Amino acid sequence: MTAPVISRYPVPRLEDLPEDIRSRILAVQEKAGFVPNVFVALAHRPAEFRAFFAFHDALMEKEGGGLTKAEREMIVVATSAANDCLYCIVAHGAILRIYAKNPLVADQVAVNYRHADIMPRQKAMLAFAMKVSLHGKDLGDEDFAALRAHGFTDEDAWDIGAIAAFFALSNRMAHLVGMRPNDEFFLMGRVPKAPRA
Amino acid sequence: MTAPVISRYPVPRLEDLPEDIRSRILAVQEKAGFVPNVFVALAHRPAEFRAFFAFHDALMEKEGGGLTKAEREMIVVATSAANDCLYCIVAHGAILRIYAKNPLVADQVAVNYRHADIMPRQKAMLAFAMKVSLHGKDLGDEDFAALRAHGFTDEDAWDIGAIAAFFALSNRMAHLVGMRPNDEFFLMGRVPKAPRA
Amino acid sequence: MTAPVISRYPVPRLEDLPEDIRSRILAVQEKAGFVPNVFVALAHRPAEFRAFFAFHDALMEKEGGGLTKAEREMIVVATSAANDCLYCIVAHGAILRIYAKNPLVADQVAVNYRHADIMPRQKAMLAFAMKVSLHGKDLGDEDFAALRAHGFTDEDAWDIGAIAAFFALSNRMAHLVGMRPNDEFFLMGRVPKAPRA
Amino acid sequence: MTAPVISRYPVPRLEDLPEDIRSRILAVQEKAGFVPNVFVALAHRPAEFRAFFAFHDALMEKEGGGLTKAEREMIVVATSAANDCLYCIVAHGAILRIYAKNPLVADQVAVNYRHADIMPRQKAMLAFAMKVSLHGKDLGDEDFAALRAHGFTDEDAWDIGAIAAFFALSNRMAHLVGMRPNDEFFLMGRVPKAPRA
Amino acid sequence: MTAPVISRYPVPRLEDLPEDIRSRILAVQEKAGFVPNVFVALAHRPAEFRAFFAFHDALMEKEGGGLTKAEREMIVVATSAANDCLYCIVAHGAILRIYAKNPLVADQVAVNYRHADIMPRQKAMLAFAMKVSLHGKDLGDEDFAALRAHGFTDEDAWDIGAIAAFFALSNRMAHLVGMRPNDEFFLMGRVPKAPRA
Amino acid sequence: MTAPVISRYPVPRLEDLPEDIRSRILAVQEKAGFVPNVFVALAHRPAEFRAFFAFHDALMEKEGGGLTKAEREMIVVATSAANDCLYCIVAHGAILRIYAKNPLVADQVAVNYRHADIMPRQKAMLAFAMKVSLHGKDLGDEDFAALRAHGFTDEDAWDIGAIAAFFALSNRMAHLVGMRPNDEFFLMGRVPKAPRA
Repeated sequence: MTAPVISRYPVPRLEDLPEDIRSRILAVQEKAGFVPNVFVALAHRPAEFRAFFAFHDALMEKEGGGLTKAEREMIVVATSAANDCLYCIVAHGAILRIYAKNPLVADQVAVNYRHADIMPRQKAMLAFAMKVSLHGKDLGDEDFAALRAHGFTDEDAWDIGAIAAFFALSNRMAHLVGMRPNDEFFLMGRVPKAPRA
Repeated sequence: MTAPVISRYPVPRLEDLPEDIRSRILAVQEKAGFVPNVFVALAHRPAEFRAFFAFHDALMEKEGGGLTKAEREMIVVATSAANDCLYCIVAHGAILRIYAKNPLVADQVAVNYRHADIMPRQKAMLAFAMKVSLHGKDLGDEDFAALRAHGFTDEDAWDIGAIAAFFALSNRMAHLVGMRPNDEFFLMGRVPKAPRA
Repeated sequence: MTAPVISRYPVPRLEDLPEDIRSRILAVQEKAGFVPNVFVALAHRPAEFRAFFAFHDALMEKEGGGLTKAEREMIVVATSAANDCLYCIVAHGAILRIYAKNPLVADQVAVNYRHADIMPRQKAMLAFAMKVSLHGKDLGDEDFAALRAHGFTDEDAWDIGAIAAFFALSNRMAHLVGMRPNDEFFLMGRVPKAPRA
Repeated sequence: MTAPVISRYPVPRLEDLPEDIRSRILAVQEKAGFVPNVFVALAHRPAEFRAFFAFHDALMEKEGGGLTKAEREMIVVATSAANDCLYCIVAHGAILRIYAKNPLVADQVAVNYRHADIMPRQKAMLAFAMKVSLHGKDLGDEDFAALRAHGFTDEDAWDIGAIAAFFALSNRMAHLVGMRPNDEFFLMGRVPKAPRA
Repeated sequence: MTAPVISRYPVPRLEDLPEDIRSRILAVQEKAGFVPNVFVALAHRPAEFRAFFAFHDALMEKEGGGLTKAEREMIVVATSAANDCLYCIVAHGAILRIYAKNPLVADQVAVNYRHADIMPRQKAMLAFAMKVSLHGKDLGDEDFAALRAHGFTDEDAWDIGAIAAFFALSNRMAHLVGMRPNDEFFLMGRVPKAPRA
Repeated sequence: MTAPVISRYPVPRLEDLPEDIRSRILAVQEKAGFVPNVFVALAHRPAEFRAFFAFHDALMEKEGGGLTKAEREMIVVATSAANDCLYCIVAHGAILRIYAKNPLVADQVAVNYRHADIMPRQKAMLAFAMKVSLHGKDLGDEDFAALRAHGFTDEDAWDIGAIAAFFALSNRMAHLVGMRPNDEFFLMGRVPKAPRA
């Protein structure tokens, strides 16, 4: 059996990549134990790769702000599920399970966040994110007010909306290149010891 | 009468911005005669500003490739109209009119590209872009084949799809911050001498 | 370059038309400086032409009532944009700019009236018109009450709803015949002196 | 029990109406045995009444053309059902049953014309009408070609499309005024002797 | 003229059916005067036939509970109309007219229950049923509370929701086999004496 | 921490249930190692429980026919995902993984069967099932022909369509009662040895 195709486009070999991109990929591999396919698929276009991960990191890895890392991943999972993006649901679902130390939450949020085992403020956060993702033109002052009622600041609202907006891009890039999630992601965070790792 | 609000978020003063961002904005002002609001609105978040424009430039300003600059702007106008993003329709509609030297094409493409005064290959290009923007999950080999039938390479397909994906992000950021198009954009490229410029 | 096609159907010559229709067309030409294509396209069917413009005039040109002429045109632009009718958006957008003495309002209303620079009562008026146009079956007493809260009478509600209903017809006729907006409309009301004319 | 409300708006008394409108209504009453509510509801606005029925008659009562009267009514029933307009479904369903001498066809066409007991050319006619009614912006040359393949001329296509367009108006007027179908319509054309009449 | 096809699948002869199914069909024929096509169409699969009618009877024929038989039929008609299922609209519309002793209510409920001549509590019941049928995933505590406000118990809510759920199955089976409503149903309950039978 | 709620309705104790239902539940518990919540949730209504599982077994457990058990579960997962039914996606996803001996296929099919690692005939099967589930009224001879082209008989088509129809019911019952999937299901069929079992 041959390895499954992970992108419609050529996937560069690690040794052919610019130094900064290769370093980034090696660091991820070191941490995760494997290279998530999004890195090699997007490395086909180095300038876009750099901008993509710079945006990603500015939103998902920044210190501070009113959102936990698990909450940011919830936004990714909920909006990516609305866009039917397998790569993002599976990869970020794994990360969400690990951050939340909860093996059920990713599947719950992907299918229907309103009935998931999450806090009311997280449901309000996801309602805002889904509106940005799916009906952005209808966004109004009342949506910001709804977030404030749960203790979110307007800077948190930017974070929530910008994550939803960034994954609107990300989901479409995954669809464009036919990005396949690594098999490893499907099980991550589901087995008892993983959440404690 | 007070100046209209251009963003829900604070708009930084030019002198308070990091040097690289200030330089970029001054360069745009030099060229366009005014500062498009997207620059000051997104400058509220310097790291995101840098990633956003790095991505933008990698797609919209790169040399080579099979798409003219006017064609890239058509993609922006068509997909932004599908998302009802006033800022992107008006600002990029202006740029499209100028690049295409055609005062009618932006309004035509915004309402219905299928009946616009454009070439069949441009309609095929926009069909692909709209599918990425609105129904990305349904993208299949037949869509790439349809582009090839019009002489587009798979690298062109990436360009088309990535522009659609990037403006999926951009439209949502504009909705999030309530970005207002500068008044100047509405008339640009419509008056007789502009098309000849 | 040949003249663009303005209708899928034969366009009658002015001298071949019945006297009442020819007079009407000459009067419009006198006033506007050109003959809007809707007149020649629909003149292919004189009986329908007469009924169409009789209905149009009863709604759009009647004296009195609670709606200004600019407000009536807002209804046309908003509902025609929802139906993606290029002819009506462009032609009535031009008239709206002139009546409102505002070069920006037509594009704003076409994309999203909720965020346009118009009055709250005008947004309520357009909400009612859009419901008639797109979800007429759901119209209920609460919609009439919402108009009354902004000072509209029930006769005003009829005017708003009937304009939306008439342009539901008009948009579909334009689609049926493939009606092309005259080039002149695109610029009308955008240049500084026009609004003052 | 009081008489049910037939319109949200005042219904004029016959003796208060202009002579031409009163005559028209009396003629209908003579023929049908009762006054269909659309006549009294729209008589609230005489100028609109006249234009409405002038348009109606130009399409529905003209002599010649490639459509039978039953076929014209099929278009009304199918498109009005898509718009959930009770008045038009019930009133024109009755007329369709009588013209077609078929007690089943109106309900069949209202629910799903594709599976109705009608001819293939009638299904093609309704497919065109439904596209004008619901997705007019997508209408293209291929739709006209599909009609020609069933023997329809382009003038027939105008008739089909214009009837669909006119009832787009009519359905919305019925929703606006809350028009109630006369009880008589529900049974017309269903009882054994009616089809033989 | 040959008899119309009532199912895409073979229709068993009465004498070839298992005894329990034949008895059931004979009992229905005795009562209704004809055999509704659903019985012979589904008899093609005896095990499914038995389960189908066991479920049907548990919901539609049980004694007690807070819903009248006419109200249960309203649920069938409203949700089947939303699914465009001709068999269920026509057959259960007939039963509804008879139970309600009202020749108009079935057509009203099929087109738009919100404007039908029914009680506010019945509109609340149908709003719940339509949500189960069309947007079940959004069902929440507020929907049960809305029913309670009209005097429905939570067991009534189960009945309402389960009838909507069962006809979601039934509508799809009718579409699958292309089930044709018996001609007799179209007129049942419409002629003056029928409601009194 | 209290046990999570598994149904909006009272859940009967095993010892209070009729003998046939208790036996069925004990048999399932014996086989699966736990009692899936659908059994206790629906046992609140014994008559409906019996009909529900009789229908289920007639479709999902019958011997023979052209569908493997894994294929039947694919239909359940794909259509339940389209309906956003967490219970059915998670529970039947587990069963699908086990039957297919494939830890990835359930998530793939739930998000987008067209890009899943399944055979072309299985994609054709799911296309038919999705049409029955979501657009049943549009089902036509061409859909049966598409199945035949992949070797399915018309009896197989009934199986496919009836499973889709039955889970249209099942999904809505799960939404109605707020059915919660057992925690055990989330991991079933994902761990290395399960696929080899």
